[in-house]
Amino acid sequence: MIKITLPDGSVREYAKGTSPLEVAKSISEGLARNIISAKFNGVTVETVSPLHEDGSLVLFSWNDKEGKTAFWHSSSHVVAQALEELYPGVKLTIGPAIENGFYYDVDLGEGTISEKDFPMIEKRALEIARGKHEFKMRSASKAEALDLYRSQGNQYKVELIENLEDGTITFCDHDTFTDLCRGGHIPNTGIIKAIKILSVAGAYWRGNEKNNQLTRVYGISFPKQKELTEYLELLEEAKKRDHRKLGKELELFTFSQKVGQGLPLWLPKGAALRDRLEQFLKKAQKKAGYEMVVTPHIGQKELYITSGHYEKYGEDSFQPIKTPKEGEEFLLKPMNCPHHCEIYNAKPFSYRELPKRYAEFGTVYRYEQSGELHGLTRVRGFTQDDAHIFCTPDQLADEFKNVIDLTLYVLGSLGFDNFTAQVSIRDLEKPEKYIGSLENWEKAENAIINAAKEKGLDFVIESGEAAFYGPKLDFMVKDALGRNWQLGTIQVDYNLPERFDLTYKGSDNELHRPVMIHRAPFGSMERFIALLLEHTGGNFPLWLMPEQAIILPVSEKHEIYAKKVLNSLENNDIRALIDNRNETVGKKIREAEMNKIPFMLIVGENEEKEETISVRRHGGEDLGSITLEAFSDLVNSEINSTLKSF
Amino acid sequence: MIKITLPDGSVREYAKGTSPLEVAKSISEGLARNIISAKFNGVTVETVSPLHEDGSLVLFSWNDKEGKTAFWHSSSHVVAQALEELYPGVKLTIGPAIENGFYYDVDLGEGTISEKDFPMIEKRALEIARGKHEFKMRSASKAEALDLYRSQGNQYKVELIENLEDGTITFCDHDTFTDLCRGGHIPNTGIIKAIKILSVAGAYWRGNEKNNQLTRVYGISFPKQKELTEYLELLEEAKKRDHRKLGKELELFTFSQKVGQGLPLWLPKGAALRDRLEQFLKKAQKKAGYEMVVTPHIGQKELYITSGHYEKYGEDSFQPIKTPKEGEEFLLKPMNCPHHCEIYNAKPFSYRELPKRYAEFGTVYRYEQSGELHGLTRVRGFTQDDAHIFCTPDQLADEFKNVIDLTLYVLGSLGFDNFTAQVSIRDLEKPEKYIGSLENWEKAENAIINAAKEKGLDFVIESGEAAFYGPKLDFMVKDALGRNWQLGTIQVDYNLPERFDLTYKGSDNELHRPVMIHRAPFGSMERFIALLLEHTGGNFPLWLMPEQAIILPVSEKHEIYAKKVLNSLENNDIRALIDNRNETVGKKIREAEMNKIPFMLIVGENEEKEETISVRRHGGEDLGSITLEAFSDLVNSEINSTLKSF
Repeated sequence: MIKITLPDGSVREYAKGTSPLEVAKSISEGLARNIISAKFNGVTVETVSPLHEDGSLVLFSWNDKEGKTAFWHSSSHVVAQALEELYPGVKLTIGPAIENGFYYDVDLGEGTISEKDFPMIEKRALEIARGKHEFKMRSASKAEALDLYRSQGNQYKVELIENLEDGTITFCDHDTFTDLCRGGHIPNTGIIKAIKILSVAGAYWRGNEKNNQLTRVYGISFPKQKELTEYLELLEEAKKRDHRKLGKELELFTFSQKVGQGLPLWLPKGAALRDRLEQFLKKAQKKAGYEMVVTPHIGQKELYITSGHYEKYGEDSFQPIKTPKEGEEFLLKPMNCPHHCEIYNAKPFSYRELPKRYAEFGTVYRYEQSGELHGLTRVRGFTQDDAHIFCTPDQLADEFKNVIDLTLYVLGSLGFDNFTAQVSIRDLEKPEKYIGSLENWEKAENAIINAAKEKGLDFVIESGEAAFYGPKLDFMVKDALGRNWQLGTIQVDYNLPERFDLTYKGSDNELHRPVMIHRAPFGSMERFIALLLEHTGGNFPLWLMPEQAIILPVSEKHEIYAKKVLNSLENNDIRALIDNRNETVGKKIREAEMNKIPFMLIVGENEEKEETISVRRHGGEDLGSITLEAFSDLVNSEINSTLKSF
Repeated sequence: MIKITLPDGSVREYAKGTSPLEVAKSISEGLARNIISAKFNGVTVETVSPLHEDGSLVLFSWNDKEGKTAFWHSSSHVVAQALEELYPGVKLTIGPAIENGFYYDVDLGEGTISEKDFPMIEKRALEIARGKHEFKMRSASKAEALDLYRSQGNQYKVELIENLEDGTITFCDHDTFTDLCRGGHIPNTGIIKAIKILSVAGAYWRGNEKNNQLTRVYGISFPKQKELTEYLELLEEAKKRDHRKLGKELELFTFSQKVGQGLPLWLPKGAALRDRLEQFLKKAQKKAGYEMVVTPHIGQKELYITSGHYEKYGEDSFQPIKTPKEGEEFLLKPMNCPHHCEIYNAKPFSYRELPKRYAEFGTVYRYEQSGELHGLTRVRGFTQDDAHIFCTPDQLADEFKNVIDLTLYVLGSLGFDNFTAQVSIRDLEKPEKYIGSLENWEKAENAIINAAKEKGLDFVIESGEAAFYGPKLDFMVKDALGRNWQLGTIQVDYNLPERFDLTYKGSDNELHRPVMIHRAPFGSMERFIALLLEHTGGNFPLWLMPEQAIILPVSEKHEIYAKKVLNSLENNDIRALIDNRNETVGKKIREAEMNKIPFMLIVGENEEKEETISVRRHGGEDLGSITLEAFSDLVNSEINSTLKSF
């Protein structure tokens, strides 16, 4: 008999040779039906392989990351079989699961695969899957393995085997197909109900451009056809919502080859959007007791040696800026914190004056390789909605709660209601890894956990995930496409106060070290606006819209009335404009739709006579002819439903 | 007879040998009394020297810059004589007039001059002046001049004479004193009625630290004692108002050795002040049809090669920032214009869409040698309230007027009512110096001159002062201490549109070049705030004050009422704070005075009972006990008297 420990801590006894799937069955048939992957003593195992010793077992379903990995890894075997059958002579290389699906790199010799071949591959792969073939692992000797692939003329697999350092070589068989494989499969191919080949791309063997170019076949698979359909719809939607595409269409930002890659230029509409977000946060921050500061975008190299950032960013980042004389060296600032520490140091503080909360929309520059750049999400210059709180250790708990309040306010006002949090604390077994006193760490960790509880956050605690200089709390926001974005980190820091020798005079008249909190609800304006664009598809919350309404006079005759309407809206703080081009109302509506303007106000003969406007919502809903007052109420009540005051 | 042409164009005939002073006398005795310097055919001459040929004569009084130069140059002779008499063996070197007064560099051997010696020097110099000695120029041979100074052992004058390239060596005699001199004196020493030695400093011979160190004696002199008194008062006031001193006292900004010299860090109160100025201008600019943009603080070197700035700023400025890989080179931006040109270039425009007015509070970085840095007026990083207008040549006139309107609005709202303007146009004799068509230059110059006239500006036209790329208009603002500051340049530019190949589609469907206007009413936020501090002594216009009122509860008992007062003020948009420290009201008032807070609101027993506040103005005026409503009216009417809406 062997003893199997399950994640809930329960220990069960089974006959030696029981498989994970059988363990699942012993618990419930329903569970067993969903189990597609397993880990035994921390190592991925086959669900059908016998277990021979005591140990801890974790079972995974499709809903787990590990389940998906096994599912997609298994699917790549199936697709590889289809490719072998459809493209005789194809040489397989490697085919891993990736974040969304899997790929297989193949050498097609003279052949090619194009998009029109995808249905054929999918059809054959699905036929194979329906055969409900089990995945069976078996060991082989190195000689045996080499023989197999040498006989096929597959130099890639030969190279892989030759480079394998340990002696164990394993194959996985299913149906008529065999592949060199480390294991980690679903019980059988029949679980795969939907397969989609997504794209093909060129890829060099082992990523080295001196090697042969292979064809990388990307695919994805699901346990239900419906899930594939939904995924493809999501993909389509994500394409439509790509912030680079929307940013161009809505004229929010642009890039210039002359200015440099990864350095966005904010066009008027984008700059107005940014400004609105900044003003929104500034207002809330003012209420929360923050003070704005302004600091330069460069600092002496010495500053970053003091802060420790030079060690981290120095060599691999933008190189120092030298002065023509005097031999000074400056760096583009990668962080605002050193500057804020120097502001704190500009005068002595007593404990009575703390906390000091310095906020700045601080633009920082960090080098990224050109290949890594991506729209606004991966740039070389970005503006953080940064702030640093300097407080006594006793004030930490309250400050943390205040920051959570502010972050929740920001997320709520922008329509993000789906998020979780993660509290990262020390690895208690390695106290030597962390700076700052044990007492302060305990205080800080308790403060964060209590604050998270008190504010009702849905959070997990991760031991050992804290930075060496302090614990933190991260928010994970799910966007409308179900993707997770990390936002609004709140980081405790015992390190910089030490490095910058920050002090305050305590009630005991002695000098003490303040604690620092770094926080940025948006993170970076650039990345946040990208997220907001993809989350809303450009249909921002009404309060944020650069243009909330557009007035469309039916003809020139109504321009004076249109102007009157505009004035009335402006007096009611509604941002509007008139489209008085010599175009048809139809065309104007189409363009307003493209520009995502929330309300189209059509004014013609009747409207002018009755002092009304005909209101059409973005998307097509007709609200009919209403008074300006009614429209203003409508806008205000809609704004007030998302944008509460802090 | 010779023909003398006067500045008004009139030509008069005089006997050969008539002196400028005699010409003045022939016009009026009153004029002659005021004439202290003259230029003949563009060359400075003695007022008493005979004229021997036809030519144009300009006569100068104390009110002219040239008059002051002659006055101070002559005074330096007088002070040099006093020094020679009081410090036997002193070796004179050079002693020029400067912007405010003059100095003389002398070698005192073992001796020194200290502040306590100043009255003795002033007394003797004034005695000499009262002798009404004429300044008499005479020529000498090189040998004669060298003999004189060699016999005195004055190696400095010997060196000066040896290095003189032309053969003419002239001396100036007055009383018993002789000095090597080029001329340009007032008629006699008697005009000097007041002399003040201001300071002494060390100075190397010829500014080279390898040479002997000399003593530089700074002085100033005036034709009336009253003017000296006023000047010294102004100097005292300027010291009190030094923005570096006020900036520290009011906690507006600071510098950090670690961040780097010339890079101001804006403290909360300073950042709030800046923000208020920015919001003020943004609001007016919005009404004037500007659109805000945001651009990065770096640009590729290529960008500045295109713009031509690299040629100007490149070698002598902050050196390029290299990337660790890819070999890219970026520069800290010295100007925002290239970025704005790239924004203009982001999409094609038709003439109907122009003008485009892109505004940005753009922080730029320009290298200055550390010795040149001075508070906020000479820094290495500063934020321009920059904007670039792209318009058709036909729109230039209107745009220019609009910019003047905006600049006048800005100056007026900030209490600057004493200013003049200068229009800089081409040198018509050197058309090859300028780029852009003749037609466009004429159009632009006429537009500027007409706009200046129409807006009622007090302006002068300076030919040949235009930049090669376009004419401009500068405002010269006189501050409360009578000093002139150049502000609010409006610059036409035909160059950058060419270099960046900017175009718009005209009504003829052809592509045309837009004209660009650069403008910045404040110039730089840093320099403007320095000026504002020195102009107002920190007593900013009420609307701009970070804190408009401070509530001083007489004791703890009244804190609740104080809080109520604060809420009421905040509801009326009055920025206020409570000083509820455990200090006497007397001390709180003193500190509020130091912090220049305009209104102190004292609340005690009576005020709480009667729901009033006792109002004390900054400076001491007691406004007695008034209602909150009355106070709010007072503040608003005072604000409205300076801050009109644009």
